[in-house]
Amino acid sequence: MTILRRKALLAPIAAALATPALLRGAFAQSAGQPAAPALSQAPGYYRFRLGDYIVTTVHDGFSRRPVEGLVRNAPTAEVQAVLAEAFMPTTTYDGVYTVPFVDTGRLLIAFDTGTGGQMGPTSGLLARNMQAAGIDPARVGLVVITHCHRDHIHGLTTAEGQAVFPNAEVAVGEIEWAWWSDPGNESRSPEGQRVNFANVARRFAPYQARLRRYRDGEEVAPGIRAIAAYGHTPGHMIFHVADGAEELMLLADTTHRPEVFARRPGLHSLFEFDAAMAEVTRRRVLDRVAVDRVRVAGYHFPFPATGHIARDGEGYRFFPVEWS
Amino acid sequence: MTILRRKALLAPIAAALATPALLRGAFAQSAGQPAAPALSQAPGYYRFRLGDYIVTTVHDGFSRRPVEGLVRNAPTAEVQAVLAEAFMPTTTYDGVYTVPFVDTGRLLIAFDTGTGGQMGPTSGLLARNMQAAGIDPARVGLVVITHCHRDHIHGLTTAEGQAVFPNAEVAVGEIEWAWWSDPGNESRSPEGQRVNFANVARRFAPYQARLRRYRDGEEVAPGIRAIAAYGHTPGHMIFHVADGAEELMLLADTTHRPEVFARRPGLHSLFEFDAAMAEVTRRRVLDRVAVDRVRVAGYHFPFPATGHIARDGEGYRFFPVEWS
Repeated sequence: MTILRRKALLAPIAAALATPALLRGAFAQSAGQPAAPALSQAPGYYRFRLGDYIVTTVHDGFSRRPVEGLVRNAPTAEVQAVLAEAFMPTTTYDGVYTVPFVDTGRLLIAFDTGTGGQMGPTSGLLARNMQAAGIDPARVGLVVITHCHRDHIHGLTTAEGQAVFPNAEVAVGEIEWAWWSDPGNESRSPEGQRVNFANVARRFAPYQARLRRYRDGEEVAPGIRAIAAYGHTPGHMIFHVADGAEELMLLADTTHRPEVFARRPGLHSLFEFDAAMAEVTRRRVLDRVAVDRVRVAGYHFPFPATGHIARDGEGYRFFPVEWS
Repeated sequence: MTILRRKALLAPIAAALATPALLRGAFAQSAGQPAAPALSQAPGYYRFRLGDYIVTTVHDGFSRRPVEGLVRNAPTAEVQAVLAEAFMPTTTYDGVYTVPFVDTGRLLIAFDTGTGGQMGPTSGLLARNMQAAGIDPARVGLVVITHCHRDHIHGLTTAEGQAVFPNAEVAVGEIEWAWWSDPGNESRSPEGQRVNFANVARRFAPYQARLRRYRDGEEVAPGIRAIAAYGHTPGHMIFHVADGAEELMLLADTTHRPEVFARRPGLHSLFEFDAAMAEVTRRRVLDRVAVDRVRVAGYHFPFPATGHIARDGEGYRFFPVEWS
């Protein structure tokens, strides 16, 4: 082992994460230029059974931002220490996106829609990965929106405003819908969230004739029940999916990346509408799925974005699923 | 959250892991019957850059065995508690197999060879996943054998004894080779390991003209250095791979599944030739990769079988790689 050189604590992290050429290959491919097979990555989808239901998590890529400013209520150095513990980069933060699909056999349901390729060059892989997974957007019968942030609803439409899911009903929580569809709420929203009003109008426009609203506790499909998880947005919802003896909690944005915000549930990300309420919700939901050992999926969890949550010290730890 | 039912501690674990129909689909496909796209899993390979080298980990499936008997020096209940903490099944244990390939640009190297589809119906996916990854066995120029257990060398040949890698040199550690190629050592080997003598003769047979031996500290290819890690077998070797500033440690069987044997490095699996020596090696290697924060890959790690090792309490914890 003497050939191993000691080195500064963080150097190998940055090095391990620096795969720009591979990324360029992936995104060149999505732009129509097939990368050489020897350089391409496996398609980003993961499939498992839940009772008789089939769940597929489909990766949409990520957006990179500085760590500086990510957390509102702790110094950057404290956030960097949490990131380093998880072997993540400490100057940049990749917000990953993975959309869960549930196929009940009678109905194919998408929970949120990804970025639609309209949030920068490192995301927008959903369409290609859906194709690899054999998921035709025309076969999606229901799109359930957990909340109305851009990275969850941009994918409802193309940049030109065409519906991406031509045959889908769209279901949105009634409290969430009431908030963002009323321009009178704009001045009552945090400044960074005001962009959502115009975007909600635009993204839902082609679905007006097939829009429905759901309430806390309502089944949006057999065995799939909405649960209020307010705070991240005014009407943010999560979903309990059960078939037979098996169950899954779709956590949506209860936490952003679990390596940071489940490990340290008291940290407030800049993405929260009401950070204090979001923290109360986050602690309640994480504790319940940990105690009950319920399988979870999270929209911003590392791909394949499903696994379990366990209590660990003052916070929680995410255990990724076993690939099978 | 009131709709969540409390349940017995372990029930959801078994349920979450029970995906037999999906598995049947995967293995039917490998037998030549394409599964319906809606049921198939993404191909099991993962690719990343390491300097100018390209590393691809390719999944070969798993073998399932009872937890009872897996660990020699602790009661089954203690092992089950470790498994439960990691959300793994507690009556069966899936030994997964993932073969790392390193492409230096001039030479494509395989580190071990998988089961060759000759160790039961739930393994033998390597050929199909190599094809998906664009890795042609005829392009492999070097096969490095870390040690001579069956699940690492069966894949050298077909069941009929044909070489699977028609153009490859095969490199094996000199101490490892000396042990298993001398029938006089059979009576000095643990009973469960004696099967390896005949198997080594059989699997290496078609490669005799292109067999070479390597020593501790030797570079088997530029930047790829063998490091003695004896105990798991008499001559078990691991590999330090470096290109430019980036490095990777191929841990081979330093630990079996890290959820058990890195968390509790003092546990002795039934796979060890000399369990006491293997434990000393395991603690030394894990501690060094944890302190130096070196990226690792492990043959029996959960797919994609690469990430980092950190100290945690009395043991270590595996942090899977970020998918990119």
